Amino acid sequence: MTPLRIDARDPASQARAGVLSTAHGEVRTPAFVPLATKATVKGLLPQEVKDLGYDMVLGNTFHLFLDPGDERIAGFGGLHRFMGWDGPIVTDSGGFQVFSMGHGTVADEIKGRAPQGADRNGKVLSIEEDGVTFRSYLDGSRKFMGPETSMQIQANLHSDLALVFDECTPFNVDREYTARSTERTHRWLERCLTWHDAHGPEDQLVYAIVQGGVHEELRVESTEHVAASRAPGVAIGGSLGENKPQMYEVVGWSTAALDRVAPGKPRHLLGIGDVDDLITGVGLGIDTFDCAMPTRLGRHGVALIAAPEKRWRVDLTAGRFKDDDGPIMDGCPCPACAVGLTRGYVRYLVHARELTGMRLLTIHNLAFVSRLLADLRGAIHAGRLPEVQAALRAGAAPGTFGLPAATRATA
Amino acid sequence: MTPLRIDARDPASQARAGVLSTAHGEVRTPAFVPLATKATVKGLLPQEVKDLGYDMVLGNTFHLFLDPGDERIAGFGGLHRFMGWDGPIVTDSGGFQVFSMGHGTVADEIKGRAPQGADRNGKVLSIEEDGVTFRSYLDGSRKFMGPETSMQIQANLHSDLALVFDECTPFNVDREYTARSTERTHRWLERCLTWHDAHGPEDQLVYAIVQGGVHEELRVESTEHVAASRAPGVAIGGSLGENKPQMYEVVGWSTAALDRVAPGKPRHLLGIGDVDDLITGVGLGIDTFDCAMPTRLGRHGVALIAAPEKRWRVDLTAGRFKDDDGPIMDGCPCPACAVGLTRGYVRYLVHARELTGMRLLTIHNLAFVSRLLADLRGAIHAGRLPEVQAALRAGAAPGTFGLPAATRATA
Repeated sequence: MTPLRIDARDPASQARAGVLSTAHGEVRTPAFVPLATKATVKGLLPQEVKDLGYDMVLGNTFHLFLDPGDERIAGFGGLHRFMGWDGPIVTDSGGFQVFSMGHGTVADEIKGRAPQGADRNGKVLSIEEDGVTFRSYLDGSRKFMGPETSMQIQANLHSDLALVFDECTPFNVDREYTARSTERTHRWLERCLTWHDAHGPEDQLVYAIVQGGVHEELRVESTEHVAASRAPGVAIGGSLGENKPQMYEVVGWSTAALDRVAPGKPRHLLGIGDVDDLITGVGLGIDTFDCAMPTRLGRHGVALIAAPEKRWRVDLTAGRFKDDDGPIMDGCPCPACAVGLTRGYVRYLVHARELTGMRLLTIHNLAFVSRLLADLRGAIHAGRLPEVQAALRAGAAPGTFGLPAATRATA
Repeated sequence: MTPLRIDARDPASQARAGVLSTAHGEVRTPAFVPLATKATVKGLLPQEVKDLGYDMVLGNTFHLFLDPGDERIAGFGGLHRFMGWDGPIVTDSGGFQVFSMGHGTVADEIKGRAPQGADRNGKVLSIEEDGVTFRSYLDGSRKFMGPETSMQIQANLHSDLALVFDECTPFNVDREYTARSTERTHRWLERCLTWHDAHGPEDQLVYAIVQGGVHEELRVESTEHVAASRAPGVAIGGSLGENKPQMYEVVGWSTAALDRVAPGKPRHLLGIGDVDDLITGVGLGIDTFDCAMPTRLGRHGVALIAAPEKRWRVDLTAGRFKDDDGPIMDGCPCPACAVGLTRGYVRYLVHARELTGMRLLTIHNLAFVSRLLADLRGAIHAGRLPEVQAALRAGAAPGTFGLPAATRATA
């Protein structure tokens, strides 16, 4: 009873391509999922997000719980109707935001250190078996979130995919703490599923979350534990290490374990989405990714370009672009580049804090990532994944491989 | 050799409808001109502005002079290419901004009072026959703008319509000052035209500006003076009074004089664009209007609706809209309302400072004004202006009069 249909596999890696079916339609996988944190992909209308080639967006349980409130959104008929997006929506559990509030870490809390900026941004007051008590960053009021709360909120939002409430363990805690925290996350998983069985929307799919820090045995144990649960999907969360090689290794432990014990369950990688991470993550058998990167970079004047030596980024706020009359990226077919708008113009708009500048770069970056994922999907279907991955890593522009258009697999 | 072709007149008023021809195409008149102050209609792409039914936008000479600089824009091939708008552009002269800098007034300057916020926003250092010296609000550097400077900047921007540099006299100066200031504005007009004859782009039309404060003889004299100049268009500027009846009276002095001495010259009314002002202004024979109102209100959460008793405005930031699942305006066909987005959603977005909220209301408000002007144009062509004006003033929704679509008059 998996919602994922796998249509093609890359024989040289764990990569697979297919279709994830939800109550609001299908997601072509592997897929990137843009953030609609506060019920909108910042600056874009729903149709624009669709036109950029995205099937699903991610709403933020924590922020929407605080404002405008999940019950209010339920009154509007759920998050889809509230934000005017009729395609699939995944909601995170709120765990990551609760635990990282004030830019602090669980370790800060445990050790009694005030996280940097905690007073301004809210504060965790207690972490107990039942859940987490914290202060709202909006009005300072006392709030509680635990497994049942998170599932209740997500039920009110009525997303297509809900994530269970987990403790997001930071990098700098020891194995002992990570082990205990992971066990609690597993107990919370069971509570989430129990609540969802009794009260959750029948058409909402639940993803369990793998934790375990950077410890191989803990990761594998956690993966096997959550994969064996009745949750139809698996998300990989928590600290994934201090650098990219370690992150790929940690993710690989989970996906290898999943290949053994639950090969058909869909897999989401939480909060990861740099260009190289997407290329590599697809090879590790990840089906969906979410990340603030393309949209957040865009709002800060950074464009994605096919330049691996620059981490695929160019900071257009730099003075040297003042008179640059070239497009954001040469040959780019995105709506911002295609109409001839220049780096110099975009630089000016970002510098002048004009909304249009943020929007143009958001569009450009999401278009870049959309073409990248379409390439990776198309390459798996065409049996060309290693070649396409290598070319992308070497600086080939997404969308230039002559792969068949990434239409809906059911079309 | 007027650029305006008048195709229809309302027998009961001074209203006329036609087509204004520019180097970058035609403007159906009467027309509202949205502000693209800093080379963009805030938050919108050029195609969206066109799709909303607008033929022309207004760029701001003062702001673009300071940043990114008119010479830089010339390096990009002019303002059209810089901002990706291939239709007509009008640029103001910078006079209004120079004189109103720091929210002060000329009178403040003359009387030695520091305008409120002058330190923060820049400051006028001297006003002399040659022009105005001021501090840039961006970096505090000393800048100069006079008639020739303004025309030079507008030549670099290469707008289709340029406005001459004028002294924008405030409301609270006396008749004597206004008279002297208006005479200087007339001398500056001659200097602008002389510069433009020698150096200006041949395909750039120049509008002279009427001043004269709220004094009938001065207004009529100024109107006759500028109408007799070789400038092909006339703009009405300066202080228009302390309330709407006085404003309509002041504008009417000019348009009556223009009907006598230069009936074929196109007339622009500077900085006026409330809904009732547009309905009345068309009846006074104004061909084009510009105003920050629809876009600025939108960014602050205020929507235009067909409610004259509320000055055609509803402030969606009010708490009572939190759970309102109706559209921004009932029956509105704009892209924001038509997809079912609600007042409650828009209120939430504006409250959360989400770019999408500002954008949705900008679109809604510009769509409202576009339909309003299409109605007024269509009504003049159909011989139904008094009826349509009365219905609009009574609260009829723009776009509901069964008037023929406001297509380009040449089509």
